Amino acid sequence: MVNAGDMNGSGNLMDFLDEPFPDVGTYEDFHTIDWLREKSRDTDRHRKITSKSKESIWEFIKSLLDAWSGWVVMLLIGLLAGTLAGVIDLAVDWMTDLKEGVCLSAFWYSHEQCCWTSNETTFDDRDKCPQWQKWSELLVNQSEGASAYILNYFLYIMWALCFAFLAVSLVRVFAPYACGSGIPEIKTILSGFIIRGYLGKWTLLIKTVTLVLVVSSGLSLGKEGPLVHVACCCGNFFSSLFSKYSKNEGKRREVLSAAAAAGVSVAFGAPIGGVLFSLEEVSYYFPLKTLWRSFFAALVAAFTLRSINPFGNSRLVLFYVEYHTPWRKTTRLGKYPVLEVIVITAITAVIAYPNPYTRRSTSELISELFNDCGALESSQLCDYINDPNMTRPVDDIPDRPAGPGVYTAMWQLALALVFKIVITIFTFGMKIPSGLFIPSMAVGAMAGRMVGIGVEQLAYHHHDWIIFRNWCRPGADCVTPGLYAMVGAAACLGGVTRMTVSLVVIMFELTGGLEYIVPLMAAAVTSKWVADAFGKEGIYEAHIHLNGYPFLDVKDEFTHRTLATDVMRPRRGEAPLSVLTQDSMTVEDVETLIKETDYNGFPVVVSKDSERLIGFAQRRELILAIKNARQRQDGVVSNSIVYFTEDPPELPPNSPHPLKLRRILNLSPFTVTDHTPMETVVDIFRKLGLRQCLVTRSGRLLGIITKKDVLRHMAQMANQDPESIMFN
Amino acid sequence: MVNAGDMNGSGNLMDFLDEPFPDVGTYEDFHTIDWLREKSRDTDRHRKITSKSKESIWEFIKSLLDAWSGWVVMLLIGLLAGTLAGVIDLAVDWMTDLKEGVCLSAFWYSHEQCCWTSNETTFDDRDKCPQWQKWSELLVNQSEGASAYILNYFLYIMWALCFAFLAVSLVRVFAPYACGSGIPEIKTILSGFIIRGYLGKWTLLIKTVTLVLVVSSGLSLGKEGPLVHVACCCGNFFSSLFSKYSKNEGKRREVLSAAAAAGVSVAFGAPIGGVLFSLEEVSYYFPLKTLWRSFFAALVAAFTLRSINPFGNSRLVLFYVEYHTPWRKTTRLGKYPVLEVIVITAITAVIAYPNPYTRRSTSELISELFNDCGALESSQLCDYINDPNMTRPVDDIPDRPAGPGVYTAMWQLALALVFKIVITIFTFGMKIPSGLFIPSMAVGAMAGRMVGIGVEQLAYHHHDWIIFRNWCRPGADCVTPGLYAMVGAAACLGGVTRMTVSLVVIMFELTGGLEYIVPLMAAAVTSKWVADAFGKEGIYEAHIHLNGYPFLDVKDEFTHRTLATDVMRPRRGEAPLSVLTQDSMTVEDVETLIKETDYNGFPVVVSKDSERLIGFAQRRELILAIKNARQRQDGVVSNSIVYFTEDPPELPPNSPHPLKLRRILNLSPFTVTDHTPMETVVDIFRKLGLRQCLVTRSGRLLGIITKKDVLRHMAQMANQDPESIMFN
Repeated sequence: MVNAGDMNGSGNLMDFLDEPFPDVGTYEDFHTIDWLREKSRDTDRHRKITSKSKESIWEFIKSLLDAWSGWVVMLLIGLLAGTLAGVIDLAVDWMTDLKEGVCLSAFWYSHEQCCWTSNETTFDDRDKCPQWQKWSELLVNQSEGASAYILNYFLYIMWALCFAFLAVSLVRVFAPYACGSGIPEIKTILSGFIIRGYLGKWTLLIKTVTLVLVVSSGLSLGKEGPLVHVACCCGNFFSSLFSKYSKNEGKRREVLSAAAAAGVSVAFGAPIGGVLFSLEEVSYYFPLKTLWRSFFAALVAAFTLRSINPFGNSRLVLFYVEYHTPWRKTTRLGKYPVLEVIVITAITAVIAYPNPYTRRSTSELISELFNDCGALESSQLCDYINDPNMTRPVDDIPDRPAGPGVYTAMWQLALALVFKIVITIFTFGMKIPSGLFIPSMAVGAMAGRMVGIGVEQLAYHHHDWIIFRNWCRPGADCVTPGLYAMVGAAACLGGVTRMTVSLVVIMFELTGGLEYIVPLMAAAVTSKWVADAFGKEGIYEAHIHLNGYPFLDVKDEFTHRTLATDVMRPRRGEAPLSVLTQDSMTVEDVETLIKETDYNGFPVVVSKDSERLIGFAQRRELILAIKNARQRQDGVVSNSIVYFTEDPPELPPNSPHPLKLRRILNLSPFTVTDHTPMETVVDIFRKLGLRQCLVTRSGRLLGIITKKDVLRHMAQMANQDPESIMFN
Repeated sequence: MVNAGDMNGSGNLMDFLDEPFPDVGTYEDFHTIDWLREKSRDTDRHRKITSKSKESIWEFIKSLLDAWSGWVVMLLIGLLAGTLAGVIDLAVDWMTDLKEGVCLSAFWYSHEQCCWTSNETTFDDRDKCPQWQKWSELLVNQSEGASAYILNYFLYIMWALCFAFLAVSLVRVFAPYACGSGIPEIKTILSGFIIRGYLGKWTLLIKTVTLVLVVSSGLSLGKEGPLVHVACCCGNFFSSLFSKYSKNEGKRREVLSAAAAAGVSVAFGAPIGGVLFSLEEVSYYFPLKTLWRSFFAALVAAFTLRSINPFGNSRLVLFYVEYHTPWRKTTRLGKYPVLEVIVITAITAVIAYPNPYTRRSTSELISELFNDCGALESSQLCDYINDPNMTRPVDDIPDRPAGPGVYTAMWQLALALVFKIVITIFTFGMKIPSGLFIPSMAVGAMAGRMVGIGVEQLAYHHHDWIIFRNWCRPGADCVTPGLYAMVGAAACLGGVTRMTVSLVVIMFELTGGLEYIVPLMAAAVTSKWVADAFGKEGIYEAHIHLNGYPFLDVKDEFTHRTLATDVMRPRRGEAPLSVLTQDSMTVEDVETLIKETDYNGFPVVVSKDSERLIGFAQRRELILAIKNARQRQDGVVSNSIVYFTEDPPELPPNSPHPLKLRRILNLSPFTVTDHTPMETVVDIFRKLGLRQCLVTRSGRLLGIITKKDVLRHMAQMANQDPESIMFN
């Protein structure tokens, strides 16, 4: 950490460079930031603005603008994320319908909009109107019959392939970072890792466009995860407009946390669920101020989306499916991403079309599965045999025996369930934007609805069984299959992501019913316990692990008995630690050390003998400072002595000009003793967001522990390959 | 911190005391715990159980029980907290009605229950039935007339005084900690402070009983805050049954966080709001595991309360009013707490009885203010002039002109508002259990309803004004005064407590409507901004401050430029730091040092000259170890040398037996350099929950910073009196 106080307060000690040289305080790609340092830089900036604000009215207004810029950024993120989500929904709606036909009165209308505007439509035939023509009607003037079916089937597959090909090509050519759901990478970025371009403008544009394409193509994937990525790109874009956020990687991440909340908010129409998701799942450093701002951003986003109102209802937002899995790397097809996408799309389209439960969009499917069977419901799932002698109010229909439609629906649901499970496994991790929420929910909802119908029929036919006797009298409405579907969806999603509180909140914000909190909660608890018994990692953690990102999970508990001395470098037998001395090395010595090693920084000690620690110098800043001095300072040559001390001694007149580097020295490096238990060290790394920590014994420097060392040690202790941690 | 690895791993170095002597690891009253140390002790315990569990089936079962004990404790807390809340509600209901009359058929029935069981009751006259007799009917056989009114009035006051006197006496005699709302103290306890007895069984019992008494007496206070205290007492009780929690102050606080969530959950019937309240307002250290367990406890508690169903509805939980304020200390009456309570109760009862809006319980008042005027509503607030020519469905009544009842209600509401504001100011902080949620909500709801009715009438009579023209056509229902009341209540509560997200969630869980999230959110944001402009502290922080508790607020930002060297002790000119040396002090020297100072611990250095830091020894453990050794170890006398080193040298045969104390030495004390900015130090104290931190320069010990030093420094920087921080 550059000590801010020293940088500004001890200007008299420096004979060059009052303003920081360019690039100081930035990080290299695929490196980890130092949270404490970022925080201290921001406080410094804040202090400067506060003290300036007393000088003039203009400065005072500037300080007010600075204080409010956080809220402005949140507002802008909410507006843009909500707008993009609305546009995506509208476009997906239109393109999904384009696979089946076209609206003659206006080609940019979706099926539903087309028939809305038609006056001849009655309530029962909402879906049928002369303006909407299937391709077979338009091309060969036939709407029924085998040849029309085959033509529609063929064109459905062709459109799907066309969309998928376009999407995968766009991703490959313009923005490789736009593929996948993006949540694992966003988790990693929020934990303090730098991946340049991952949240860039190109990614934003391409991800938005290709998301529409892949969802429209009918692949078994969802748009929720990618929407979080899109919202974070918005967040990154707007934070780059304000120097408060663009110049500070720590502050920028506060904005990104809130943007992730806004993303979930528009994906599900669940602002509170979004904030909790961001808190529980995505964010690493989540101060309470961010909680509040996230809520604001999530609310603005949800409000904007509702104003656009892409579905004509303001409650349930459409659903799609999303998945990604660690086995991707081993598939052969994975080497040919375009071919892979085409093949999977073709298989999906060919199998999905004939089954009504896979042909429709997954969100419609989920919505139908959640619904209870009212008297007016025309769905096949509600084909019950009614008792003609009974007259009851519409909203209190007793359990009834299933009719033939329900049995057909059960078979189709079972086939759809198997297909959905298999195809999502192959869809996940393709090189296109893809999310996992909706496919998991669909799988759970299908299984849940089937169980629900089974229990309902059992209860109807055997209401004298002990399990039913006490709470289900004949003629009562005691089993609601739609609730089983909802609980199944929650359980499946909970098992995949290991969300808990945020899952329950999202589910009840989705369904609008606070009453179902107990069954939802029970489902979430059970699925988490069962899933944890198979392995502690959710899909996002597994993905992070697979990619080798240096992510220090807040939820992992470290309970081993090792001490700092077991983890620090150098180990016994290794070469001694590379250190700088405060007043005895030449510029050339330092340059050689930099060249020969690739460490991110070097401890500075009093002398090689005493090993008493003075501070820590960052590699990047050392390089910049020496380069700068060689260019701009006369007399600094390879022989110049590098001084990290406060007052360099008077040198003999002929000796080369010394290079004073105290200003880049972090005078408060973090230290622990060699006896510190590793669990404490892990805790410190997590909570303070450190990049490295020095190890001392009785004031003498012994070694260094970096974040990577900690992660490798943790992998080793969990019997995993420590080499799986790949970046710094 | 006792280094756990060393305590167990280096047994061969110790020649006494393999098991820890009693009281090691405990803290003194009014002292702060060391979170890192508690955490490390728990990990150690966990490791021991895990390694033992492989030895036998019994040990394995024991380890399973240990792992599940957290969930069991949550379940028990939820059950007990829910039951207590239900019992309190039932008792309050009965005793509130007892002030007005009695049920002849069964004296333990409340007014409503009494008339429920009566068959003659029709829907319109729910409140009138022959079994329920007012006191005047029972005693002088008169139900109307001036003398009956005066008799009822008198008995109402007498009962109120009687309840209040009983309550204040019980609190004074048996459990002084039962007074107030308890939330400021719970916040302080959760931040790591020890207040023995504050969560004890006596407090639990007396607080429950007196809470019923004071709420029934009609004082302007609420039961929500005290219910959180009661739930925390339950949490403390159950955690004392499991050694995992009873022996570890850190783990115990995890349970208490969850118990606080359960308390809010039963106070408002809002489980999610409870979890968020605990997270946002109360808890200090809130790991994600606690989030999940809190949710479980909150849910069980809410579920238990609903099963008891004290109000016959399962949605809105009754409301009461609560307040406390920092000016308490200056009132003269404050020195005579019993008299104070009697006087305030008398004034409350005398003024409250004649006005219908202050006579009823505050929760009923809020409920009426929130309600919209339907066609069947008989309330005075709904006395509108209906258009006889209009037939409309019941749930879509247009704006109507106000009738005389509404005008009367407006006057009474205005008087009630003024009275409520004044009397709550005097009620808060009396020596009885008292909460602040409901009075603030009532004040806000009254003001909101009045504004709502005003806007409604304006819109009705002037619907051509610009502000109404675009959204309020004549004959439409465009203003809902009930919603104004709800928003007003949220705004007032938000201003008092500075809750944000949890406030909105509690409000919509209370009212059951997710739709009002936008106005509620706007109210919460505005009230927080306005209130923050007057002062950053909410009522709880103000109270903590007033009591001088050492509470390091997570929300305060420290932005000053000071360094560790400015805060550490000894200051320039003060006596040098009291240190122990590792191998040159006698038992007597150490005892003298302990006697002459009152520090909580002493750094151990190599020698007074080199000042190189070895570790840190706690005062309490030094005293215990020396006392123990003097009693149980032969040869340890005042002249014995105290060794903190690993291998004490061989001593000449005649010298006294040495005292080896390495086992109580914390070998990994926390250190920072003297150049560390104070903002980093504050961050470290907060996030790691430290009790003290040593300051070094180039490996040499310079001084020490304790939590109290940090708090004093922060007070000084904020231009407050540093002496206001009173405990350690």
